[in-house]
Amino acid sequence: MNYIVMKFGGSSIQTILHMQRVAERVIQKQKEGYGVVVVLSAMGSTTNQLLDLAKQVTKYPSKRETDMLISTGEQVSISLFTMILKARDIEAVSLTGSQAGIKTFGSHLNNKINDIDTSNITKHLNDHQIVVVAGFQGMNEQGDITTLGRGGSDTSAVAIAAKLQCDCEIYTDVDGIYAADPRIFKTAKKLSYISYEEMKEMAFLGAKVMEPRSIEIAHQHQIRIYVASSMTMEKGTYITEGKEMIEKQTITGLSVSDKVVMVTLKHVANQLNIVADLFMNLAENEVNVDMISQSPSSKDFVNVSFTAGANDLTQINEVLEKLLQNNPDIEIIMDNQVVKVSVVGQAMRHQSGVAAKLFKVLSENQIEFKLVTTSEISISYTISKKLKEQAIQAIANAFDLGETNV
Amino acid sequence: MNYIVMKFGGSSIQTILHMQRVAERVIQKQKEGYGVVVVLSAMGSTTNQLLDLAKQVTKYPSKRETDMLISTGEQVSISLFTMILKARDIEAVSLTGSQAGIKTFGSHLNNKINDIDTSNITKHLNDHQIVVVAGFQGMNEQGDITTLGRGGSDTSAVAIAAKLQCDCEIYTDVDGIYAADPRIFKTAKKLSYISYEEMKEMAFLGAKVMEPRSIEIAHQHQIRIYVASSMTMEKGTYITEGKEMIEKQTITGLSVSDKVVMVTLKHVANQLNIVADLFMNLAENEVNVDMISQSPSSKDFVNVSFTAGANDLTQINEVLEKLLQNNPDIEIIMDNQVVKVSVVGQAMRHQSGVAAKLFKVLSENQIEFKLVTTSEISISYTISKKLKEQAIQAIANAFDLGETNV
Repeated sequence: MNYIVMKFGGSSIQTILHMQRVAERVIQKQKEGYGVVVVLSAMGSTTNQLLDLAKQVTKYPSKRETDMLISTGEQVSISLFTMILKARDIEAVSLTGSQAGIKTFGSHLNNKINDIDTSNITKHLNDHQIVVVAGFQGMNEQGDITTLGRGGSDTSAVAIAAKLQCDCEIYTDVDGIYAADPRIFKTAKKLSYISYEEMKEMAFLGAKVMEPRSIEIAHQHQIRIYVASSMTMEKGTYITEGKEMIEKQTITGLSVSDKVVMVTLKHVANQLNIVADLFMNLAENEVNVDMISQSPSSKDFVNVSFTAGANDLTQINEVLEKLLQNNPDIEIIMDNQVVKVSVVGQAMRHQSGVAAKLFKVLSENQIEFKLVTTSEISISYTISKKLKEQAIQAIANAFDLGETNV
Repeated sequence: MNYIVMKFGGSSIQTILHMQRVAERVIQKQKEGYGVVVVLSAMGSTTNQLLDLAKQVTKYPSKRETDMLISTGEQVSISLFTMILKARDIEAVSLTGSQAGIKTFGSHLNNKINDIDTSNITKHLNDHQIVVVAGFQGMNEQGDITTLGRGGSDTSAVAIAAKLQCDCEIYTDVDGIYAADPRIFKTAKKLSYISYEEMKEMAFLGAKVMEPRSIEIAHQHQIRIYVASSMTMEKGTYITEGKEMIEKQTITGLSVSDKVVMVTLKHVANQLNIVADLFMNLAENEVNVDMISQSPSSKDFVNVSFTAGANDLTQINEVLEKLLQNNPDIEIIMDNQVVKVSVVGQAMRHQSGVAAKLFKVLSENQIEFKLVTTSEISISYTISKKLKEQAIQAIANAFDLGETNV
């Protein structure tokens, strides 16, 4: 039997009515001959409601007990969804993360999947049952219920698909992966295919469709992911190996990070340990430094700039205060009126001139950029917030990221 | 270490605030030197809310999936309650029924406890943790989540106490066992002790404090149960072995069943098989027949009366219709304007004249009774609904069931 994993997020199953619609799609897939595993999140905003309850108890609730609490959200989803299937005379069974054999490790609220013993899942699949698994959760070696943190249900789905060696379909409230955010660039092109590497890069760079960790698992195990809307039957996007892709273009996509702060340090004494200590301290305070640039300002001094998430501002300030205590001459400029625009494309590996073309586009449109960093398949620019839309339009047009028939 | 099991029902933990109050009581018990196991129901009306969700899906939801659904109610309780304890720096851990080792068998929604592997509970107790167990639930041999039906959380608590060989305290919204229902007989006496057998009889006869099944387990394993209010510190009632009881009186308690229907069949041919078939058919239709009385009306005919729960009316009617088809001469009288008043007392075994005294009390108060049945330690009367309060007052006064100092 060909297996398939279909994952539906909280907004796709927020009411019984939504679930009824999703059930039809799942039954259709079974009729096509697949052994279907359904992975569900908690309904709508259930998880947040449960977290609010915990916050009524105490500001910092026990993490183990929070896992015990919020894991009930998916358990409610899977039982109701399985009732719907059985009320339509479809053989089906619900399994909690633990019953589905999802073994995890790590710290509560943020566990990682260690392994999946799929014997219970495959037993039910071979009995021609639709298997409805609670996403986002598992059980650790001590037998405690655990949850998988952000994007956890996607991770559950892709990991099950990896063990079953089958495709994984992620149904969500967007209908695929776009070359650029359609809310900003209206005519943005929906991609039929995107490579694992491009998708990971896009995800790291701020695209919100999927967390990088699920794509990483899919990549490692060579599992194809299909991202599509749970509400329409429109074709979605395959995330797959680059060589499978038919469309080869310079740039596959463009992503934008809004919540960025750029820090510039001037008049830093040109001693290796000062800059090294700075980034060590930032790392120890769990500040995720993104772009870094350093340039000499004179023989004995350098200027250092870096960007980080705006959420880390408190920790950044703590680290910088210590730096100032030891080096009172350093001048610090914080700029939170910046965004990071990144362009991603696997073809950059083999095609030269992408960076050059981008510089030209930006200069022709008088878009000044502050920092630039590059990876093997991406280039990121920090630009002023007010130039964001203009930059996106210019880049998207130059690299044909829009629909040709619009 | 001396262990103790403390069980709190849904109304005792209906809000976080209620839970906070319960937590204080639990912590106090630990300070007294006990290893404390707390067994919790679902908060307030959670279980009914979850069942309503299932009814939105279908009139007859899958029972396995209903167990999966409603078991989340206790899981929410135990996690929040454990958070409260830990926020007060008390070592504590929550365990689902399955994690607590509660192994069950039978049909979903109505499982029975097969055994409890208490090794996980005792491990945590010996680590000086308060162990907070989800009542009402367990896991069957197939690894499915199950629930224990009516009174299930009491059953969980008593069964754990039985395995740990310790006392079991049941905290509820009444503050003990009364000799008669205080809502009807205002000055009813609260009992300090009641025997297992009396309590079982009272429960079977309609007293709503505890289900007979938990008392049966406590009796078998010689575990003392203490029933008290979760809201006050007033002394409650011990359910224990008869010989431990200090108060020996003729009648310990009086209980009333309201939802009774009395059926009288007149002109039944005096053939053994007709009556036998009737009760066989009632049993096959899961009608729980309670009192039965038969008397000859002439040489060839008898009158038969019986009572059953008013909930079973539909099934009773079906059975009687079949009876009429084969025996068209039988006259059927249904009376749902009756109640059953039962008096219970272990001392009846050894003291004669209780029945006689009761007959006298009823006749002096002109209370006509319709059916009478007796067990070793109880006597039950069916009387007209409108005589209910009068009968209770008369019996309670005659047998000193009221507080002497009122």
